[in-house]
Amino acid sequence: MIIVLNEKNTQMAQELQQRFNGTNDVFVHRNRVAIQGISAADLTEAERQAADELIEDVPAAVQGSRLLHPEDTVINTAHSVIGGDNFTMMAGPCSVESLEHVTKMAAVAKASGATVLRGGAFKPRTSPYSFQGLGEEGLIALRKAADQYNMDVLTEVMDDEHVKMVAKYTDIFQIGARNMQNFSLLKTVGQTNIPVMLKRGMSATVDDILNAAEYIAAGGNHNIMISERGIRTFDNKYTRNTMDVGVVPVLQKLTHYPVIIDPSHAAGHTEFVTPLALAGTAAGASGLVVEIHDDPAHAFSDGAQALKPNEYKAMADQAYAIRAALTGVPAQVQAEAGR
Amino acid sequence: MIIVLNEKNTQMAQELQQRFNGTNDVFVHRNRVAIQGISAADLTEAERQAADELIEDVPAAVQGSRLLHPEDTVINTAHSVIGGDNFTMMAGPCSVESLEHVTKMAAVAKASGATVLRGGAFKPRTSPYSFQGLGEEGLIALRKAADQYNMDVLTEVMDDEHVKMVAKYTDIFQIGARNMQNFSLLKTVGQTNIPVMLKRGMSATVDDILNAAEYIAAGGNHNIMISERGIRTFDNKYTRNTMDVGVVPVLQKLTHYPVIIDPSHAAGHTEFVTPLALAGTAAGASGLVVEIHDDPAHAFSDGAQALKPNEYKAMADQAYAIRAALTGVPAQVQAEAGR
Amino acid sequence: MIIVLNEKNTQMAQELQQRFNGTNDVFVHRNRVAIQGISAADLTEAERQAADELIEDVPAAVQGSRLLHPEDTVINTAHSVIGGDNFTMMAGPCSVESLEHVTKMAAVAKASGATVLRGGAFKPRTSPYSFQGLGEEGLIALRKAADQYNMDVLTEVMDDEHVKMVAKYTDIFQIGARNMQNFSLLKTVGQTNIPVMLKRGMSATVDDILNAAEYIAAGGNHNIMISERGIRTFDNKYTRNTMDVGVVPVLQKLTHYPVIIDPSHAAGHTEFVTPLALAGTAAGASGLVVEIHDDPAHAFSDGAQALKPNEYKAMADQAYAIRAALTGVPAQVQAEAGR
Amino acid sequence: MIIVLNEKNTQMAQELQQRFNGTNDVFVHRNRVAIQGISAADLTEAERQAADELIEDVPAAVQGSRLLHPEDTVINTAHSVIGGDNFTMMAGPCSVESLEHVTKMAAVAKASGATVLRGGAFKPRTSPYSFQGLGEEGLIALRKAADQYNMDVLTEVMDDEHVKMVAKYTDIFQIGARNMQNFSLLKTVGQTNIPVMLKRGMSATVDDILNAAEYIAAGGNHNIMISERGIRTFDNKYTRNTMDVGVVPVLQKLTHYPVIIDPSHAAGHTEFVTPLALAGTAAGASGLVVEIHDDPAHAFSDGAQALKPNEYKAMADQAYAIRAALTGVPAQVQAEAGR
Repeated sequence: MIIVLNEKNTQMAQELQQRFNGTNDVFVHRNRVAIQGISAADLTEAERQAADELIEDVPAAVQGSRLLHPEDTVINTAHSVIGGDNFTMMAGPCSVESLEHVTKMAAVAKASGATVLRGGAFKPRTSPYSFQGLGEEGLIALRKAADQYNMDVLTEVMDDEHVKMVAKYTDIFQIGARNMQNFSLLKTVGQTNIPVMLKRGMSATVDDILNAAEYIAAGGNHNIMISERGIRTFDNKYTRNTMDVGVVPVLQKLTHYPVIIDPSHAAGHTEFVTPLALAGTAAGASGLVVEIHDDPAHAFSDGAQALKPNEYKAMADQAYAIRAALTGVPAQVQAEAGR
Repeated sequence: MIIVLNEKNTQMAQELQQRFNGTNDVFVHRNRVAIQGISAADLTEAERQAADELIEDVPAAVQGSRLLHPEDTVINTAHSVIGGDNFTMMAGPCSVESLEHVTKMAAVAKASGATVLRGGAFKPRTSPYSFQGLGEEGLIALRKAADQYNMDVLTEVMDDEHVKMVAKYTDIFQIGARNMQNFSLLKTVGQTNIPVMLKRGMSATVDDILNAAEYIAAGGNHNIMISERGIRTFDNKYTRNTMDVGVVPVLQKLTHYPVIIDPSHAAGHTEFVTPLALAGTAAGASGLVVEIHDDPAHAFSDGAQALKPNEYKAMADQAYAIRAALTGVPAQVQAEAGR
Repeated sequence: MIIVLNEKNTQMAQELQQRFNGTNDVFVHRNRVAIQGISAADLTEAERQAADELIEDVPAAVQGSRLLHPEDTVINTAHSVIGGDNFTMMAGPCSVESLEHVTKMAAVAKASGATVLRGGAFKPRTSPYSFQGLGEEGLIALRKAADQYNMDVLTEVMDDEHVKMVAKYTDIFQIGARNMQNFSLLKTVGQTNIPVMLKRGMSATVDDILNAAEYIAAGGNHNIMISERGIRTFDNKYTRNTMDVGVVPVLQKLTHYPVIIDPSHAAGHTEFVTPLALAGTAAGASGLVVEIHDDPAHAFSDGAQALKPNEYKAMADQAYAIRAALTGVPAQVQAEAGR
Repeated sequence: MIIVLNEKNTQMAQELQQRFNGTNDVFVHRNRVAIQGISAADLTEAERQAADELIEDVPAAVQGSRLLHPEDTVINTAHSVIGGDNFTMMAGPCSVESLEHVTKMAAVAKASGATVLRGGAFKPRTSPYSFQGLGEEGLIALRKAADQYNMDVLTEVMDDEHVKMVAKYTDIFQIGARNMQNFSLLKTVGQTNIPVMLKRGMSATVDDILNAAEYIAAGGNHNIMISERGIRTFDNKYTRNTMDVGVVPVLQKLTHYPVIIDPSHAAGHTEFVTPLALAGTAAGASGLVVEIHDDPAHAFSDGAQALKPNEYKAMADQAYAIRAALTGVPAQVQAEAGR
């Protein structure tokens, strides 16, 4: 349950924590105290008196819940402010292919307002015989490219043994869709203080996502963002996945973590990426993470879904225009805000 | 296959029609002739000479395909222009409840730019013991309300026997999701010239939708629009269905029929209707069809997903603002365009 | 709610019926009385006294529920006994192609124990340009073939206008998967006393099926069987649909109607039909409905999923052997039982 | 492509291997040589002459394909022979709870023919606050219990760091559904020679499963079995997942690895476990893996789906009876075969 303490009685939080800490999971956020596995009957009269409200129906993923933490999580990295009223553009190639190439893509990304450079160095490929990424060499290149343009790095970490090494290069860990319930990996990134972008699994329910995020939070890392990248449904003839745009307001209601739309994996084909990006923006997402490539036909991976530089620019301009239409903040100011 | 005739040889269309009409399905649209079941080898040298292009890979639903009919279908009703560059707002109660009520809702709908009044008089309810609609009495009320505000009527027809009767009152037939593959009904509305809004079945693939639309077109009625209203996936805990916003650009690529978003059935809960409506708008839909109610708690059906008048107004304003941001046409002008 | 009357007080059923009939839906089965929309508080002391049990949590589809009707529904046709401890084999071609052909198939079906001859004369095809069936001429042939071999006819009726005509020829109506929620059609067959095989829609939940069946029961026709024919999931590369074999015990727990497995549409490919048929048999289905053809490559429809005569015989022998293993009733006796 | 060498020319396998090994992935199985990324045109005349057949259309997961390895994989452990014509019963508690308890369950499992004792010591739980297993202490207990009854151990390994430790205790690794595409883990177990049971992911397609298995095979470990445990579909009100029984014959056609049915996770509720187990058996699975518990209400995890000892015995008897009906091998002989 969650005990919402009266503003005058917030010292009670410490007392509750002391009383229950040995036996129950206890989480405190400002004047709110979540204690797992108890009910109102387990509280003393004084404890009940100190509360403005007792919330008995609490989800398992309590640290991620708005019930414990009503205000938005806002994540500050070196070059970005993610969540709250901000809108963050993240872009880059699917795979890091070379220093030259990723640097070129960083320039493109930055020119249209991206403050985060994405790129894969360890690639989770369906087949063991597909290109598996450049590894640490790729990370070095990605870091250099981002630094040159004052951008943050976002890159996937695929297993717990790599967390320390990847941490040397990245500003944001990406946990891929196939690893969304790799609990060992979630626990390991949960023990760092590096922000994590958790991608929704192909058939993960909303509750599954929130519980997966809770594995990270349970380790003490609360810098979490959630990315919708399309789910698996009965029809994938024309799009690679089905983008569940409705999950944006649903997650925003339930959790305080920022929600980022990945239109590239949802669409799977360049021609559908922009409409999905704009749909996600209009639904209220806190940002976009988009794959770009200057020569998609020769991309090392996922070329079919990469936007070319000019397509990316047009998409970004429209996304900012939609944000401006909805929030009243001019596109130019939005684009500047994150730099 | 489709034979794209050279502009100078369009008279060949007639000759091809005469030659193949007895044995094959032949469809002509301007300088394009679709003939089912033949290949280039079946053409004479003269016929091949008359063609700019021979398209061999043609979908079964050929009349709905952009390959035969590249330009957008634009549907003109008494009060609306649907498709092309237009954006059409359609709103009204789930069920017609009374003349007074539907008239009140018509006023609300119209005030925020709707030119089409929706309302159900025959309701396809999951349980036989639920309210099944007011029947013809409801249609009479709906017609009166629409006429008072110079609006078109959109209402569901549930079976072929009712088509004639419903035709007396409506400007647009709605075919419900559960009837999307009720082929008898599709054939019957296909023999009228009243526009049809075909709602996507809960597990209908894109090809299924296009083939269902083709049943209508095969009867000679080409005034078809397609409505996405959410599909059935593995997660319906927080939204009633999963809105497949990606189907908007996919359908727009494949077919010339306008695509309309129904955010109400997709969301199932008022609080998620607006983000879905805006997402559909940003993805490029030709319009919205939205359920509204002034007292959702006492609605005869589906109250949980109805927008209240002020919520509807706010949503419509934002949708027009997004359209303006994307097209450069000011919201006021858009709203006027359809009246 | 359902009131389970004490055996000594069953006359109370009539009294309850009289008291509530004008205002509520009331259904009586033996000593059980279902009254929609009331709770225990609405009963008099005498009414409560007459009850052994009050069941408050009752599904909308109450007539189909085991709570109202605990014993199995057993359907008697001229040549078959369907449901209860019986196992019914139903086989025949997808489409009726000619009198000769369907007669030949009837002989094959009968030789391996089938007592029901299936065949389509009105075909619900995805595309309007596909073969739509022989119509009434097909029904005449199907009837003749069945009569020659003392078999029942099972054939699809696609719309309410055809119900009377099809009724002249068939012993069992089939409602196809695409029409499972064609409520007009369900109501119309509900007003006949001809048994109905209701096929599960591609994305119909268990509750959807039971509510669809309730539309038939609400009209007074309780001779209902439900057929699982595969559902639509994320993978249909190797099988046409995903057979949900678990629905057999689930439905058997919830409803008294017989459950029939259609392995042909679930599999979509001959090589997988037999394992699915055996799986359904082992799960406890009351029968199988199987497509057979002596020359699948030239079948008018769905040849890819038809068993050839020898494959059908081998499948039937194995199905009877599994039934014998599970029930102790020798295969030969089972096969005779239905004749 | 795959080159099927003539029996007289099998020495050509070595030559091909030498020629392509540096540049392409080459796999040899008896007289079959798979070389990735080449076509017939890349072969010399002599190479083509040596071949009986050239198979150009080869799946990415080539080592698991029947095209390279037509005969069944048969896995020999200390106490079991899995695959081929054998039928293997595997049973045990969801979680190892104590030495006493798991020993008791081993006795129950063995008494009805199980030769493999399953039990979880590291549990992949959706919520971080749920019981996570006894860890190595649980493995010690599981090993002791299995040894006492001459059984093999089957237990889940959740991350690559644990592979060595778990290997000390287990005869068969289980890779859980949530980890099916944890490629790091797959690679690590692929470098051992311990048999692996790979459980199908909740939304894994057939191709996804085969590619995941290929990650194991690519490391040199070919002792792989695949377990169907239910997939995620639109309906999970009555069963936890939807068992895709059709995947049994589909996988058996495509791959040589044994297919094992897990009816417990598919059903989620005891009452539906037995019908699913029997369905899987009738469909031709090579074995069953079933959760059992003597006091399900107090099980540490998943009690709702555990069979009680008597239910398990009844299920096993019926499964053997079905096998006997299908194969002609008496149940008693089957049960003895694996001991």
